[in-house]
Amino acid sequence: MSSLLTSPTASSRAAGLLFAPIATDLAAVERVYAETVAHGKPGLARLIQHLDQYRGKRLRPVLLLLTAHACGRVTPTHHVLGAVVEMVHTATLVHDDVLDEAGLRRHVPTVNAGWGNKASILLGDYLFTHAFHLSSTTGDARACELIGEATNRVCEGELQQTLERGNLSLSEEEYLEIIDKKTAALTACCCQLGAYYAEAEPEVVERLANYGRSLGIAFQVADDLLDITGREQTAGKTLGTDLEQLKLTLPLIHMLENVRPEEATRLRALLRGRSPQRREAITEAVETTKAVAYARQKADDFAAAARDELECLPPSDFRSILETLTHWSVRREK
Amino acid sequence: MSSLLTSPTASSRAAGLLFAPIATDLAAVERVYAETVAHGKPGLARLIQHLDQYRGKRLRPVLLLLTAHACGRVTPTHHVLGAVVEMVHTATLVHDDVLDEAGLRRHVPTVNAGWGNKASILLGDYLFTHAFHLSSTTGDARACELIGEATNRVCEGELQQTLERGNLSLSEEEYLEIIDKKTAALTACCCQLGAYYAEAEPEVVERLANYGRSLGIAFQVADDLLDITGREQTAGKTLGTDLEQLKLTLPLIHMLENVRPEEATRLRALLRGRSPQRREAITEAVETTKAVAYARQKADDFAAAARDELECLPPSDFRSILETLTHWSVRREK
Repeated sequence: MSSLLTSPTASSRAAGLLFAPIATDLAAVERVYAETVAHGKPGLARLIQHLDQYRGKRLRPVLLLLTAHACGRVTPTHHVLGAVVEMVHTATLVHDDVLDEAGLRRHVPTVNAGWGNKASILLGDYLFTHAFHLSSTTGDARACELIGEATNRVCEGELQQTLERGNLSLSEEEYLEIIDKKTAALTACCCQLGAYYAEAEPEVVERLANYGRSLGIAFQVADDLLDITGREQTAGKTLGTDLEQLKLTLPLIHMLENVRPEEATRLRALLRGRSPQRREAITEAVETTKAVAYARQKADDFAAAARDELECLPPSDFRSILETLTHWSVRREK
Repeated sequence: MSSLLTSPTASSRAAGLLFAPIATDLAAVERVYAETVAHGKPGLARLIQHLDQYRGKRLRPVLLLLTAHACGRVTPTHHVLGAVVEMVHTATLVHDDVLDEAGLRRHVPTVNAGWGNKASILLGDYLFTHAFHLSSTTGDARACELIGEATNRVCEGELQQTLERGNLSLSEEEYLEIIDKKTAALTACCCQLGAYYAEAEPEVVERLANYGRSLGIAFQVADDLLDITGREQTAGKTLGTDLEQLKLTLPLIHMLENVRPEEATRLRALLRGRSPQRREAITEAVETTKAVAYARQKADDFAAAARDELECLPPSDFRSILETLTHWSVRREK
């Protein structure tokens, strides 16, 4: 989800303007982050420095700070927890990047090249454990509990996704469960923490957690969609990274569930066999079943659901930015 | 450190008898552990079941429970934290087991075979995050802080060791710093938690943390020594796994620091070049410099230092077992 506000320069500039109201708080989060992961040993320091290339536009601390502001107050605890969620996210990216199949080595330029998989794994662990230790410095076990629970759901979702790779009968429900865990658990937690430590009413905390959750799902559905449509428009040659890895996402699941059973069997065999005709056959079935439009609508529905939750907040610039993010999450073009 | 009480059946039986006084508490720890990691999805459940083969004799919960008893009381918090430290340890073993070099794949039968590296990494993360979440259920941020800090030191030590691989000028001080982090930080934390939640006096908590720390270092020095002496006695062909991986341990460090500089240069070149004469040359230099005896004495010194700390405790069966462990840690034969 790191690319939400990255890639196109125009978007980056827009993001810069959009997040201007929380610039001071973001700088405070960055300071806590940098102080926490810093290390005196040159070898370790170089490895930690290398991490900067993993990081995007700090979406998770942004969500945490915006909800805090929208609820009326930002405290030093928010800055600490902003650094915690960013650290957790970076840890998952580092581990996501460790390759597991020899075949993939050839296609993906490895960022682990300089240090090997083992150092990457340990670097991710270093971040995870720093994040947990940092959350305990708030002195509140509730913060540790919320962070621990969300992080656990993220790992569980990633693990389920990995174990389901190659399962071409994955249902829409199973897919949504996976992305609810791997992406939405942490965005929900960010908004929950922002509201909770701004001392918002329990109902507001809950609704903002729901906002973060729906936003995360909307984003992930849109992101998975880009893996198909983005590739088709630009390269025009592949079926997208997810499908190459036999990882089913919403459009393909919808397609397989909405063709005749024998056609679904044929399409699954084509996908598995990596036949050269598969691209044409899949594209045709995706069009026939209006699978892209279906997935896009689904993303829009989650974005709208996220917006609805914001009604619990009084009008403010911060609430407006949270609303803007729901549109942004489903309208990116890369 | 999982093999402390494993391998020989005689030792296992002895361990069973030795730990009989805490059998009920260990069973409670096991229940918390099993309930926490359990999962309803069959795929994930199988992977979690596979974990059992990683686990040894629960040394870390044993240390935590023994110190608690020796301080006069064991509470449900101890059972929860016993499961936490075991989970953290298992997570580090799982990540330790993910291979980073193609060459190693050929020599080591991979336990990741069934699921691939990625699933192993995520499984370790699943355990880490469950451990942190579980520690927050004590409702005490102090528990999260101690666990977070110790776990962080473990990862930092492992990371330093990985980055120092191939450094044939590693000093004794650097070596001790690494094992102090990667092994002793968690054993120290176990004893600290045991005493702290038994409401021992701060001085006793500190001395028992020191006990755990010295015990951990003694164990690791002895374990590294076994990698050399064990191999020489049994296989008689290799220089031990550590040296094959160009990972310097205490006897080799002492040897390189106690031969003439030009001889040290020649030995380092032999090690790096993987020459066939190196085994003989290294064995000779190890003997000349009495490097094995030196390392053994060092392990004994740390074991004795650990014993000294136990003087803060009133005599009891539990204190006696803690004392027995200091002898055991340096006298294993494999």
